[in-house]
Amino acid sequence: MDNKQISKAVIKRLPRYYRYLGELMQDGVERISSNELSEKMKVTASQIRQDLNNFGGFGQQGYGYNVSFLYNEIAKILGIDKQHNLIIIGAGNLGQAIANYTNFERRGFMIKGMFDVNPRLIGMTVRGIEIYPVEQLERFIKENDVQIAALTIPKERAEEMAEKLVSYGVKAIWNFAHTDLNLPSDVVVENVHLSESLMRLSYKVSNMKK
Amino acid sequence: MDNKQISKAVIKRLPRYYRYLGELMQDGVERISSNELSEKMKVTASQIRQDLNNFGGFGQQGYGYNVSFLYNEIAKILGIDKQHNLIIIGAGNLGQAIANYTNFERRGFMIKGMFDVNPRLIGMTVRGIEIYPVEQLERFIKENDVQIAALTIPKERAEEMAEKLVSYGVKAIWNFAHTDLNLPSDVVVENVHLSESLMRLSYKVSNMKK
Repeated sequence: MDNKQISKAVIKRLPRYYRYLGELMQDGVERISSNELSEKMKVTASQIRQDLNNFGGFGQQGYGYNVSFLYNEIAKILGIDKQHNLIIIGAGNLGQAIANYTNFERRGFMIKGMFDVNPRLIGMTVRGIEIYPVEQLERFIKENDVQIAALTIPKERAEEMAEKLVSYGVKAIWNFAHTDLNLPSDVVVENVHLSESLMRLSYKVSNMKK
Repeated sequence: MDNKQISKAVIKRLPRYYRYLGELMQDGVERISSNELSEKMKVTASQIRQDLNNFGGFGQQGYGYNVSFLYNEIAKILGIDKQHNLIIIGAGNLGQAIANYTNFERRGFMIKGMFDVNPRLIGMTVRGIEIYPVEQLERFIKENDVQIAALTIPKERAEEMAEKLVSYGVKAIWNFAHTDLNLPSDVVVENVHLSESLMRLSYKVSNMKK
């Protein structure tokens, strides 16, 4: 199977399929039809069939989808069947909130350490994850094979820090700073811009009332 | 101007225009051409012209866009020219991180209070915002004209809490719980699913390496 053929829109929807399939497995469901899945996910059955047909031969007429098989295939496509080492830059509330998500580890994202410039935070731990000074970043990234850095620092310092991280070998930035990072094209950036999410919500509320 | 005519895709991009225009204003820039804006935002100039033409007559040939006018018009469309009262359900790290964002207030989102079930947190404040017991939710929502609730509680309790909030008069849920909420169609839901964001990042990293 060639991942390259799968459209961006489908990829965007895969994590949601993955979540529903995981919940079905927890409930002991072994197989499910596109109609049943459609009802649960509030997506049309034809959309589901189209999306999942991308992976070829998972569904069978009269049988439906094998839940755990599909779950594992989607994990492979998303690359979460392998371990990814992650660090968190910025040990404030948001950084600590991320460190506290045990779910990420279940999906193969191992949080190796947190980093901060505030000397009062250095040496503290969050759920066993230690906070280190930023001066140790370069060595730490190399010694721990860190691929992903979550950036939860103010936007003023985000770009400079991201460039440093990339020069130390980080391949992907999970960017919570409210700015766009201009990085080399072989660096992956996934933005979480909370202000923009809140503005979209505001738009929907404002247009609801009319 | 009828907001209804603006496509969803354009609305999704508006917060980003808003952010760049705000930064230009801070830098004292009064007008900008679509070409200059294009270079800054890494979007084609024709995309910018198409998007902004939706609002009619903002740009003028040979003059460009009036930055503050456009900024204010976008604010109106997004509904952030008015005040929205917001509460945070769940005073853990993520709830506290949200309470600490001063940016939200500058955009008209006033955080009126936080709520938690943990008795040890009750009465504490985060940046002057008090944490109240959930028993006071109904009265608080009515007395403070609360429209928006940020939901930063575990997914197991999210749906039940969301239904309560709606019954108390909340019109919009900013949902950080990793589950889909099934609410009446006149309730606005904006999801921030961090796990899914991280999986999309994982997908991009996995496909980068090949």
